[in-house]
Amino acid sequence: MTKNSDGEFVANDRNRVRRGLKRASYDKKKVYDIIDGHFLCHVAFEVDGQPFVIPTSHWREGNRLYWHGSSKSMMIRHLAKGNPASVAVTQLDGLVLARSAFSTSVNYRSVVAYGKPRLVEDAAAFNYHMERFFEMLAPGRWSQLRPMTDTERKATGLLEMEIEDASAKVRADPPGDRDEADYPVWAGVVPISMRQHAPEVAPEGEAAPLSHSLLDAYKLPLR
Amino acid sequence: MTKNSDGEFVANDRNRVRRGLKRASYDKKKVYDIIDGHFLCHVAFEVDGQPFVIPTSHWREGNRLYWHGSSKSMMIRHLAKGNPASVAVTQLDGLVLARSAFSTSVNYRSVVAYGKPRLVEDAAAFNYHMERFFEMLAPGRWSQLRPMTDTERKATGLLEMEIEDASAKVRADPPGDRDEADYPVWAGVVPISMRQHAPEVAPEGEAAPLSHSLLDAYKLPLR
Repeated sequence: MTKNSDGEFVANDRNRVRRGLKRASYDKKKVYDIIDGHFLCHVAFEVDGQPFVIPTSHWREGNRLYWHGSSKSMMIRHLAKGNPASVAVTQLDGLVLARSAFSTSVNYRSVVAYGKPRLVEDAAAFNYHMERFFEMLAPGRWSQLRPMTDTERKATGLLEMEIEDASAKVRADPPGDRDEADYPVWAGVVPISMRQHAPEVAPEGEAAPLSHSLLDAYKLPLR
Repeated sequence: MTKNSDGEFVANDRNRVRRGLKRASYDKKKVYDIIDGHFLCHVAFEVDGQPFVIPTSHWREGNRLYWHGSSKSMMIRHLAKGNPASVAVTQLDGLVLARSAFSTSVNYRSVVAYGKPRLVEDAAAFNYHMERFFEMLAPGRWSQLRPMTDTERKATGLLEMEIEDASAKVRADPPGDRDEADYPVWAGVVPISMRQHAPEVAPEGEAAPLSHSLLDAYKLPLR
C-alpha cells in the first residue's frame, strides 16, 4: 500500500500498478509532468457496459484535467452527467530491442488518471480555462485571436476533472536481458520522438507574421 | 446510414461518427492503413462500471487486432473472459492554428475499433502471431532472437479481437476559417511527426551488427 501524502496519489484497486512495479510511480509531480508533456490524451468511458475511447487534447491546472469538444458529442454529454472517466497520456520514447521476444519492450512515459468530469458552465471560468489551453499550446496567441462568440461558446463543451487518483509508469532503460548479452543478435534501443516541422502558412497567405514560439511548452524539437 | 459492403464497416450506434462527418470513414482499407501505421494503441474496457484505458502495442492480420501483455495483468484477464473492448490508434500530424479559438484544431489520423477479444491459447497460433508482431516491428528479427521458452509463453497473454465495427476519422487540412482570412493573425499548420533516431547499442556492447531495417514497416523517418 502506498502511503498517502500531499505529494502522492493513494494507490488503490483502480490505479495501482500491478505489473512492472519498479516502473510505477504515484508521485504527483511526476504524474503532472507527463500530463503536461503532451497535448494528446485518450479518454475512456462506458455507456451501458460498452467501453469507448476517444483521442482529444487536454491541459491541466493544479490537480484538474481539462478537455473540450462539441457540446453535442456523445463523450461530452455522457461525461457531463458525472459519469466516470479514465484518461491516458502516453509518450513513446523508443523501441527496446532485446535478445529475446520476451524482453523486447518499449520506452515510454505514461499516466492514467481517474475521476468524474463536470461541465464548466460559468462563462468567466470557461473563458479563463480556454485561455489557459491556448497559452499552453501557443504562448501569446490567445490575445491575437478573433474573440470567441456566444454561439461558439455554446457549441463548446468544456469538461473539468478533478484527478481522484492516478499513476505513472515509465520505462527509460536499455534491454533488460543483460544476462544474455552473449546471444549473437544486436540489442539496444531505437529512440523515437515527436518533432515539429516548419510551419505551413494557410493558402490564403500571411495576414500577419508568426511571432510567438509555437509548441515551446511541449519542448518539441524543431526538425 | 452507411451502406454495408465488403469494403466498409456498417455504421451503427457504437461506431458512427456524429461530429465532423466529412472527416469520417468506414472504409476498411482506410481503417486498416491507420491501424498498421503505428504500433501504439489505447485499449479501453470497463469493470463494474469503471472505465480503464491502457496503452499497449498492437498489430493486425486481416480483420483481427492483436495485442499482448502479462497473462496476469488485469486487462488480459478481464478481456480473456470475452468482455468488450474499444481500441484507439491515433496518429498526430499537426497543430492547426486558425484565426479563432473555435477553428483551432489538430491534424490527425485516428481509428476506433470495437470487439470482444479472446485469448490465443493454441501454441502454434501463439507462435505464429508473435512472429507476425516482430516481423512488423523489425522485419527479419524474429529468427535472430533467442527462442521463447515455455515459461515465457505461459507468462504472455495474447489477445485476438475480431473487429466487429470501426470507424476512421482524418483531418489533413489547413485552418477551416478562410472566410476570416483578413483577421490579422498568422494562420496555418505546424506539422508534427514521429521520428526515429540513431540506434543506441546496449551497454554490454555489440554481440552482432544491426542488420535489418528497423521500423521500416511504420515508415518512421530517421532524423
